[in-house]
Amino acid sequence: MSLETFIAAARGEEPADLLLKNTQLVNVLSGEIHPADIAIYDGKVLGFGDYKQARQIVDLAGRYVCPGLMDAHVHLESSMVQPSEFAKAVVPHGTTTVFCDPHEIANVLGLAGVRYILDASEGLPLSVYVMAPSCVPATHMETAGAELSAADIQGLWSQERVIGLAEMMNFPGVLFRVPAVLDKIKGAGDRPIDGHAPGLSGLDLNAYIAAGVESDHECTALDEAREKLQKGMHIFIRDGTTSRNLHNLLPLITPGNSRLCHFCTDDRHPETLVTEGHIDDLVRKAIAWGLDPVTAIQLATINTAEYFGLRKVGAVAPGYRADLLVLDDLAAVQVTQVYTAGKLVANDGSFLPSPAALPHVPIQLSIHVDLSALSFALPAGEGLARVIGVPLDQIGTDNLCMEVAAENGYVVSDPERDVLKIAVVERHHATGNVGLGLVKGFGLKHGAIASSVAHDSHNIVVVAANDDDMRAAVMAIIDMGGGQVVVAGGETHAACPLPIAGLMSDRPLEEVRAEVAALNEAAHGLGCTLSDPLMTMAFLPLAVIPTLRLTDKGLVDVNKFDIVPLFVGA
Amino acid sequence: MSLETFIAAARGEEPADLLLKNTQLVNVLSGEIHPADIAIYDGKVLGFGDYKQARQIVDLAGRYVCPGLMDAHVHLESSMVQPSEFAKAVVPHGTTTVFCDPHEIANVLGLAGVRYILDASEGLPLSVYVMAPSCVPATHMETAGAELSAADIQGLWSQERVIGLAEMMNFPGVLFRVPAVLDKIKGAGDRPIDGHAPGLSGLDLNAYIAAGVESDHECTALDEAREKLQKGMHIFIRDGTTSRNLHNLLPLITPGNSRLCHFCTDDRHPETLVTEGHIDDLVRKAIAWGLDPVTAIQLATINTAEYFGLRKVGAVAPGYRADLLVLDDLAAVQVTQVYTAGKLVANDGSFLPSPAALPHVPIQLSIHVDLSALSFALPAGEGLARVIGVPLDQIGTDNLCMEVAAENGYVVSDPERDVLKIAVVERHHATGNVGLGLVKGFGLKHGAIASSVAHDSHNIVVVAANDDDMRAAVMAIIDMGGGQVVVAGGETHAACPLPIAGLMSDRPLEEVRAEVAALNEAAHGLGCTLSDPLMTMAFLPLAVIPTLRLTDKGLVDVNKFDIVPLFVGA
Repeated sequence: MSLETFIAAARGEEPADLLLKNTQLVNVLSGEIHPADIAIYDGKVLGFGDYKQARQIVDLAGRYVCPGLMDAHVHLESSMVQPSEFAKAVVPHGTTTVFCDPHEIANVLGLAGVRYILDASEGLPLSVYVMAPSCVPATHMETAGAELSAADIQGLWSQERVIGLAEMMNFPGVLFRVPAVLDKIKGAGDRPIDGHAPGLSGLDLNAYIAAGVESDHECTALDEAREKLQKGMHIFIRDGTTSRNLHNLLPLITPGNSRLCHFCTDDRHPETLVTEGHIDDLVRKAIAWGLDPVTAIQLATINTAEYFGLRKVGAVAPGYRADLLVLDDLAAVQVTQVYTAGKLVANDGSFLPSPAALPHVPIQLSIHVDLSALSFALPAGEGLARVIGVPLDQIGTDNLCMEVAAENGYVVSDPERDVLKIAVVERHHATGNVGLGLVKGFGLKHGAIASSVAHDSHNIVVVAANDDDMRAAVMAIIDMGGGQVVVAGGETHAACPLPIAGLMSDRPLEEVRAEVAALNEAAHGLGCTLSDPLMTMAFLPLAVIPTLRLTDKGLVDVNKFDIVPLFVGA
Repeated sequence: MSLETFIAAARGEEPADLLLKNTQLVNVLSGEIHPADIAIYDGKVLGFGDYKQARQIVDLAGRYVCPGLMDAHVHLESSMVQPSEFAKAVVPHGTTTVFCDPHEIANVLGLAGVRYILDASEGLPLSVYVMAPSCVPATHMETAGAELSAADIQGLWSQERVIGLAEMMNFPGVLFRVPAVLDKIKGAGDRPIDGHAPGLSGLDLNAYIAAGVESDHECTALDEAREKLQKGMHIFIRDGTTSRNLHNLLPLITPGNSRLCHFCTDDRHPETLVTEGHIDDLVRKAIAWGLDPVTAIQLATINTAEYFGLRKVGAVAPGYRADLLVLDDLAAVQVTQVYTAGKLVANDGSFLPSPAALPHVPIQLSIHVDLSALSFALPAGEGLARVIGVPLDQIGTDNLCMEVAAENGYVVSDPERDVLKIAVVERHHATGNVGLGLVKGFGLKHGAIASSVAHDSHNIVVVAANDDDMRAAVMAIIDMGGGQVVVAGGETHAACPLPIAGLMSDRPLEEVRAEVAALNEAAHGLGCTLSDPLMTMAFLPLAVIPTLRLTDKGLVDVNKFDIVPLFVGA
């Protein structure tokens, strides 16, 4: 398509491809809603006005039209499905652009993981932009599948859809000027650099921003968000499956500062995507809780496009990409139709593109374990043991000190007292590493629960009421090439195969959602008292969240930021 | 300065260069005013907060601090002084950044003119960004000094401070897809492209925007500005010496759209700069007429920095360039101190840098006229003559049809009836071209007025009560190497030499202002009834403004867009 032809079509000299007549346009540029007949040509908006000719004319009879919604920060892996299935789930909800950080799959497969996300999102009716993962691995107290150096990241900039540096979680590394960390920031040049700095404030926050970090999606308190915004950070207001900050942060937004505010989900699991939706859910809630609807849609569209330096996306105006939504109800964000690049891709909740039109990308096996080398034997020691205390449905853990059960000189699970063995099995390089520990709070009376989703290195984590089921659960994960499982007495009670890096299914979101529900139900059937034990378990190896964690290298006291022995000693 | 050291200083590990204590910060990012102690290091803001150490501490006792002001579109040549003298005039008023279109000097000297502006603004305490002139010459009905092709413009992109394409005045060329015009737009790539499209609306406006034009500073009516903004254009609200649009356009600005609004001066003459100021004048008036002060300052700072894609300029926050103002009174925009890149450069209206610190750039002679080849003889013809009618102090002209005085077969000036000879003498290539015509409205009874400032090709324009003074005035301009002059009886009554391209003086603004005042006074002494005859005269050759104009090639009927004979015929 030549510029010449596009100009001619904008003047009405050529018929448009599509004319949406009688709309009420939510104009995020002028901050108002006004009537408009919108002409579209070659995937872009020609403009609105008195257009006469079009190959297709749709009379929208006064319905609202707004730009397609954008998620400013998301880990696609948390949806547990491949990008095409993620698109099927979110596009009918009005999401047309996401900015994803593929750091989960990068921890498993390195650059090959980033390439998978790029390839598997190519040609989707959803624009998937990728932020280069800045912190792979998250810590050196665990064996990850791969490491991304500053040079690796540098190699990604030639990819058209890799547009910035993803959340710089290693803020101490920035503040203390660790060369490998600053090299990544310097290498990003003028590209956007996302932050991740829960609770950082004062001069340390100044230094983190002065280093070049420009956004934050970890604000939980209003004062925290206010300070960060005052200092120039863009605030990505997050409502994920677990971290829900929208209600707290909504009072942040004023007419004078809203351009620095955005919406993101960070992590939404299948159940949340199906039952609550995606960015539409945040817009809807924000409006319900009092935010002006046009402002809410600005947060989810033009603000985010501008932050990421995208041109001519995020609004409905001449020359803009024709990503737009038809809404039957504005305040309810009731999405009737979704157009991306001028093509109708969802109608009344149905995703229209045929499966054949979606990318199908093969991916290497990611589970490398020498089962014969594994031992789950945990020799009993002196004195009390450090036990990971799991409070009901919270992500933080307690560092408990307890007496533990032992048989023949080895620690055993003690379901009576709810002190169970937990293992983290290295699964990337077949090192044979098994981290062993104890956990309290699962309530499991029989069997075992295991998962290859285990942040951020995604080794296999397993909690068991006995050693035989622990081994059986790990074997089941290996047999599936990754996934989640509940076993008891050697039998699989429920399973969700996740063959893509051990993180994502190759089947539809609805199936995965049903399997995850079945997993939880099976766990509850074995006595588990946590509402979502697989999710709780997935965070137990994450050695950057207090207090006590387990990796394949052993128990980590996060406050000491070091490996500690299981037994406290006499 | 390393990033490492800057981070350390932001954390307070190193003393700051400067600490501004007890300020009320006009925070254009958060849209509020709040107390702040602002630390500065290496020309940039470290942040605000509890900084203890600094090499210099200034207690501002509750005064306001805001970012330095920006002019989104200005022709420096209209100040009639070189860039260093312009800086002296505007920096004490709080302007720290200008986006200039050097199309006046480019019409005279071509790329050498653009280079002069770049060289002569290098190292000033004023950031001068240059937009590559898109329309040199403005028309082909006049001989300009130079032409800038798409290839010439392409060659400018390597210059660090050339950041976009200047006002695309040739909107018909865009709408009708003239290849040489679209090549300039395509060549600009992702750089900002400024517009200039008075009155354009509807589908033609869509097409102009769809072509890639992103701003407009020519809106005079509110509805016009509203339509342009709705369609995504950034609106540069202009208050120049003659074109004053601020009062009309102020109601355009709403909280939902203000990010697309900006301030510019376009053209401010010495008198206006001295008596009214610069961007501070627009901010002050906007506030007086009801705009929220923080919004007004956003228009003049961060909005403009973002439009032009500048990073870390236009706000006071960690990592931002320390261009900031101390204001004694916010609503009055009373600028007490001006810092650029952390250095105090103006104090209580005084410009502090020493003359030795300012650039002194030699420039080639721009007047090339073979005086012996010039003839001002205008043979009388048949019937009535076309006479340029100049209404009192308006820029448009009338196409009058009148009988004219003649002697010995030649037309002569007829001061009694106020029908005077006017000539436009080509002065770039010594072609000997002299366009001759008649003008009514000056009221000159004796002598002549001449100027080498004559838009947009800047030939020498002269209006005279007799042929001898006409020639004497042109000779005086040639002798000065360019400038403006009032002569009578062969004697120079007043003169303002403008040796820089025939457009700008090499002396201080105050001197030029006094000389311009003396020129007008001298013209009035000779009977002239126009309040600013030199300015009126400077627009008489501009063959894109209705109705009748004169260039070195002859009379132009702008409605026909063609050269027409002086005499209508029998």
